[in-house]
Amino acid sequence: MKWCRFQVGNKVAFGMVEGDEVVEVSGSPFETYQATKSRHPLSRVKLLIPCVPPTFYAAGVNYRAHAQWAATVGLAASPNPPTKADIGYRANNALIAHEENIVVPKDSLGVVEYEGELVAVIGKKAKHLSREEALSCVLGYTLGNDLSERTWQKQDRTLWRAKNTDTFKPMGPWIATGLDPNNIDMTIRLNGKVVSQFNTGKMVFDVAHYISTMSHYLTLYPGDVIWTGTDNATGPMRPGDVVEVEASGIGVLRNRVVAEQ
Amino acid sequence: MKWCRFQVGNKVAFGMVEGDEVVEVSGSPFETYQATKSRHPLSRVKLLIPCVPPTFYAAGVNYRAHAQWAATVGLAASPNPPTKADIGYRANNALIAHEENIVVPKDSLGVVEYEGELVAVIGKKAKHLSREEALSCVLGYTLGNDLSERTWQKQDRTLWRAKNTDTFKPMGPWIATGLDPNNIDMTIRLNGKVVSQFNTGKMVFDVAHYISTMSHYLTLYPGDVIWTGTDNATGPMRPGDVVEVEASGIGVLRNRVVAEQ
Repeated sequence: MKWCRFQVGNKVAFGMVEGDEVVEVSGSPFETYQATKSRHPLSRVKLLIPCVPPTFYAAGVNYRAHAQWAATVGLAASPNPPTKADIGYRANNALIAHEENIVVPKDSLGVVEYEGELVAVIGKKAKHLSREEALSCVLGYTLGNDLSERTWQKQDRTLWRAKNTDTFKPMGPWIATGLDPNNIDMTIRLNGKVVSQFNTGKMVFDVAHYISTMSHYLTLYPGDVIWTGTDNATGPMRPGDVVEVEASGIGVLRNRVVAEQ
Repeated sequence: MKWCRFQVGNKVAFGMVEGDEVVEVSGSPFETYQATKSRHPLSRVKLLIPCVPPTFYAAGVNYRAHAQWAATVGLAASPNPPTKADIGYRANNALIAHEENIVVPKDSLGVVEYEGELVAVIGKKAKHLSREEALSCVLGYTLGNDLSERTWQKQDRTLWRAKNTDTFKPMGPWIATGLDPNNIDMTIRLNGKVVSQFNTGKMVFDVAHYISTMSHYLTLYPGDVIWTGTDNATGPMRPGDVVEVEASGIGVLRNRVVAEQ
């Protein structure tokens, strides 16, 4: 099942994607919902970010090959991934939907790079979940592109502008349910050319481990998102480029890069 | 003017604090509002956190004496404050209101310390504000206590549990308007005894500087909060303690510390 959030005219609603149509619902997948009689052609709705997170979590470095690459380019002191599942944060201001433009600020010193990721979307309030129970609070999975301005990432004390500049967090296109988060094939393409491929089974700490660890100290809420990291080297994007993050069982998150006017 | 958010029975509303009464409004100070005919004794309403932030910003180290102290106790590598206004983040799960309990997890290795802070609350959507324009997007100011578990702060790669464990971010009691953020007297008390006093005029980077810097790259939204850091040494709190953060022109944020059951 695929849950989207969309706009038609001035109306914002959740919907179920069925083939090339969206079945509009009243309510939301995070509370209660009921299918309405409204169906819209998928091509005629504007897809929005599939949820607005109360808290926006991000795992950071969570694949071995990416950790090694990060050390070779001076983004990390060690080529080893973290030894504990210490979650990080991103900011809602930076979120954009599928097909919205990534805007590179005029004063970016470059380079801005893609980081395609699997995103777990929390569906139920949860605390103190065991590893075995952990995935029971997940509604489903969507895709994220954790764009990173590498000069700012090296210069600044925090990731505020390197990773949280407006438009730097594409998320979507929708939330797919019923997936095994440990076996999803991820493909990142730049202008149609494959630039990275990996399977989510290679995460250092998997989704269940993160959720059980986090929920020992904090309450997860419906709509919270956990971005789970990217694998491999990443590469630069320039204005005019189109970047796509694709996952088996989910779909494609596509965004164009433009320069700030 | 003092804006609170409160609950009476099952109803949640914004209100204006007038003496020992709350004038209930329809709408909110972040959009449009209208005073209703309902007035409640302040002592009979449950105060809630004064807003639910879309993004929860925190300045971190922003006073010289605190930076020096942090270095002496091994929390910072350098006794100098940051040279740039690189904002950080906290998490909504951790927010609690005035008079709600701070719960120290069973497995805390200690110590949990207070950090009383001035908090700027954004009232209007804003981007690309100059220093001169910066404060025009601020609705008002409230208080925060940036509780920190110092062992986790030293052990972990991020601040996720050191500063964002559930209940570790008391915020309130309400939002006061019309204040000069550069001249507020802050007093922190533990069990009635003053443990820290400072004036917000001693911030390394003031509120206007943070807002103009941040808004160059990111859009600020109504309800976003910017915690501005604490001064001086901080100290430990134990179950049974009562911690208060007081500010001239705002009021008192009071919370009791309890042990997790």
